[in-house]
Amino acid sequence: MMKIDIGGLKRDLEELGRIGRDENGGVTRPSFSTPDLEARAWLKARIEAVGLAYRVDGAGNIFGRLEGADTAGGAATGPGSGAAGADRGAPRPPKTVMAGSHIDTVINGGIFDGALGVLAALECLRVIKESGRRLARPLEVAAFTDEEGNLVGDFLGSRAFLGRLKRDVLEKELTSYGRPLKDILKRTEFTVESILNAHYAAPELEAYLELHIEQGPVLETEDVPIGIVNNIAGKHYRWCSFTGTASHAGTTPLELRQDAFLGLADFALRSTQLVATHHYGSMVTVGKVQVKPGVFSIVPGQADFSFEFRSHSAETLKTLERVLFNMADDIAVTRGLGFSSRIVDETKPVAISPRLTEILRAECQKLGYPWLMMPSGAGHDAQILAEVADTAMIFIPSPDGISHSPKETVRWEDLEKGANLLLQALVRLAT
Amino acid sequence: MMKIDIGGLKRDLEELGRIGRDENGGVTRPSFSTPDLEARAWLKARIEAVGLAYRVDGAGNIFGRLEGADTAGGAATGPGSGAAGADRGAPRPPKTVMAGSHIDTVINGGIFDGALGVLAALECLRVIKESGRRLARPLEVAAFTDEEGNLVGDFLGSRAFLGRLKRDVLEKELTSYGRPLKDILKRTEFTVESILNAHYAAPELEAYLELHIEQGPVLETEDVPIGIVNNIAGKHYRWCSFTGTASHAGTTPLELRQDAFLGLADFALRSTQLVATHHYGSMVTVGKVQVKPGVFSIVPGQADFSFEFRSHSAETLKTLERVLFNMADDIAVTRGLGFSSRIVDETKPVAISPRLTEILRAECQKLGYPWLMMPSGAGHDAQILAEVADTAMIFIPSPDGISHSPKETVRWEDLEKGANLLLQALVRLAT
Repeated sequence: MMKIDIGGLKRDLEELGRIGRDENGGVTRPSFSTPDLEARAWLKARIEAVGLAYRVDGAGNIFGRLEGADTAGGAATGPGSGAAGADRGAPRPPKTVMAGSHIDTVINGGIFDGALGVLAALECLRVIKESGRRLARPLEVAAFTDEEGNLVGDFLGSRAFLGRLKRDVLEKELTSYGRPLKDILKRTEFTVESILNAHYAAPELEAYLELHIEQGPVLETEDVPIGIVNNIAGKHYRWCSFTGTASHAGTTPLELRQDAFLGLADFALRSTQLVATHHYGSMVTVGKVQVKPGVFSIVPGQADFSFEFRSHSAETLKTLERVLFNMADDIAVTRGLGFSSRIVDETKPVAISPRLTEILRAECQKLGYPWLMMPSGAGHDAQILAEVADTAMIFIPSPDGISHSPKETVRWEDLEKGANLLLQALVRLAT
Repeated sequence: MMKIDIGGLKRDLEELGRIGRDENGGVTRPSFSTPDLEARAWLKARIEAVGLAYRVDGAGNIFGRLEGADTAGGAATGPGSGAAGADRGAPRPPKTVMAGSHIDTVINGGIFDGALGVLAALECLRVIKESGRRLARPLEVAAFTDEEGNLVGDFLGSRAFLGRLKRDVLEKELTSYGRPLKDILKRTEFTVESILNAHYAAPELEAYLELHIEQGPVLETEDVPIGIVNNIAGKHYRWCSFTGTASHAGTTPLELRQDAFLGLADFALRSTQLVATHHYGSMVTVGKVQVKPGVFSIVPGQADFSFEFRSHSAETLKTLERVLFNMADDIAVTRGLGFSSRIVDETKPVAISPRLTEILRAECQKLGYPWLMMPSGAGHDAQILAEVADTAMIFIPSPDGISHSPKETVRWEDLEKGANLLLQALVRLAT
């Protein structure tokens, strides 16, 4: 049985992790930043060193390809190219088995989120190639651009790979750097046009597998090294405000106040209690808070805040939207406040292919690895690709549940198990 | 019976209110700012125009003096000069009856908070002077420096007037402009030395009266034009933090979170409920909130906030300090958080002289004005001066309870009543 080399994978992760190292000990490597361009060059060199065929598409997605025995030619027409009818009637090239993730990071992130999935897939392809064994289907390692959404929202690369991006979003919106995407693209070989056309070069996918850190505490709490994801949560993001009346904190009796912050406090507690009690497994979070005027002796007249909830069920998401914002309105009326909100983002839950989870379970059993079927609360490129191919995700534990932080880490023995599981699943899917 | 001229007083208020008018339609005139220096020149001219003797002390406190019939000389040795024994045995000059407030403002404040008390007192002295009536005691109008605490904390001027300032505070601390006081003083005629010595020139006080807007909704709610203050609340200011663990909002189950913001939400609600239920009339406020890291998809790992409470009873303040911070500790333990806090400021409650409130009530009755005995939740120079003299405060309604805002206003008929009450009280005290 083939096995990955954890020592080599560790070296790769640590080497890539030094690119974009920031003053706070983390990695700051958003897509198309200077460190990201350096990381892209590093990854290209690694792909070529392993002997894979390097390819980059118009959205900056990077691929390393290992041809299969059945392969009729190079990159084939893909999922977004149905309208290009020239090849109709010609024999379809074999579908590609792909594995990957992303190498961009959040600001002051860790070295494993994303990079681990790309470099483990690269290591798997290296092992397969060096084994000399020729599998039926072609295999590709993929690194998708801007999974973290530092440019125009999450998943720019995988959405471009599928041809699901809209021109006006790319042309009009400011990035989270506060600059238009066009300006940022000027230092790259990519353009809005090339991003919109990226999907024409995409291969048709047999399956997409992604190995990732859990980014939560469940596997560690349960002491299990492998999570097989059966569902990626949908989410609902809003930016909300309670509005009351700013007044003097020394002279406005408690019963005459319209304290916007107390409205938010009430909503945060009651919404959490409701979700925890009646929708176990769903999430609700107030992450960002701005209280105005925000000084010592003034009762807050306004409280602006981010409010998000996630669920693995589309029906629960709909129920939560109705129940939670009714609750906010009720709190506003009771406390003499106003409440308003606007939707910032919304994604649907994605069910993982039962065929792939069955393969992953079977391979875990063969390898003797304990596993847990579990949902993913975080979004991943796999949920975008699920639209055109069977996708699956393998999680390994995040010690202390930490991610998006310089303290993000993994246990190497967990990573070895996760990468070996990925290897066996890829071999099986490509055979 | 003498009466003030509300037309003239209105003109004065509007004229002074144009100095330091900011782009948001409010007045921004912190002490020793350029607009404040302009306002000081304007006030000096008005004091001299009325025919009073202008004087400024080493802390920039401005006075206009009308000598009484019994006056032995000019400004006499004051409350802070007990150690200057040279005049011991000499006949003590008659004590001064003083009325005033302040002409500095908060950032983007209104034209009435402070200015009204100074200009109403000036109008009273003008009326008394023009009546030709010679009262026994000298009268002074006072404008104290930096009541709003934009420099080194509240009440710089009145604390200097009493000799209660410490050199290290003046020399070491940064002002709320972020600059040392010494730098700010460079553009004035004042120095740290002159501020520390200001009290040597202070006259001994018979009484201090301050007319002020209520800055709260009580008088308007009760539909009464005059509030006679019987107590100024003490306060307790802290800067507090709940600390938990920042974690991914999509992957950290609700029951495994250590959400610092929910700790704050719980504390804000429960502390408010406790004070409202068991300590009616006391105040508790969370005015400033900083949630970290403060982004959409991350469970807050830290929540920093201002926490203040006020009461008219020193005993209640002590009880609240014990009960509320025990509550915060309990919430922290229950939620797996840390809690810490540091005291930012603390003042004791001040009881108003019963002699003066009795005089004010009697004069209200004579004038036919409805009045309400009420506490002041806000701090005022009167509470500092209460240490050395009988002090009292007259409130007039704040429409909609608004102050520290460009929307701060008064009804002119209320102001006329308040100023006439001040006039009658001054005449009685000086006779």
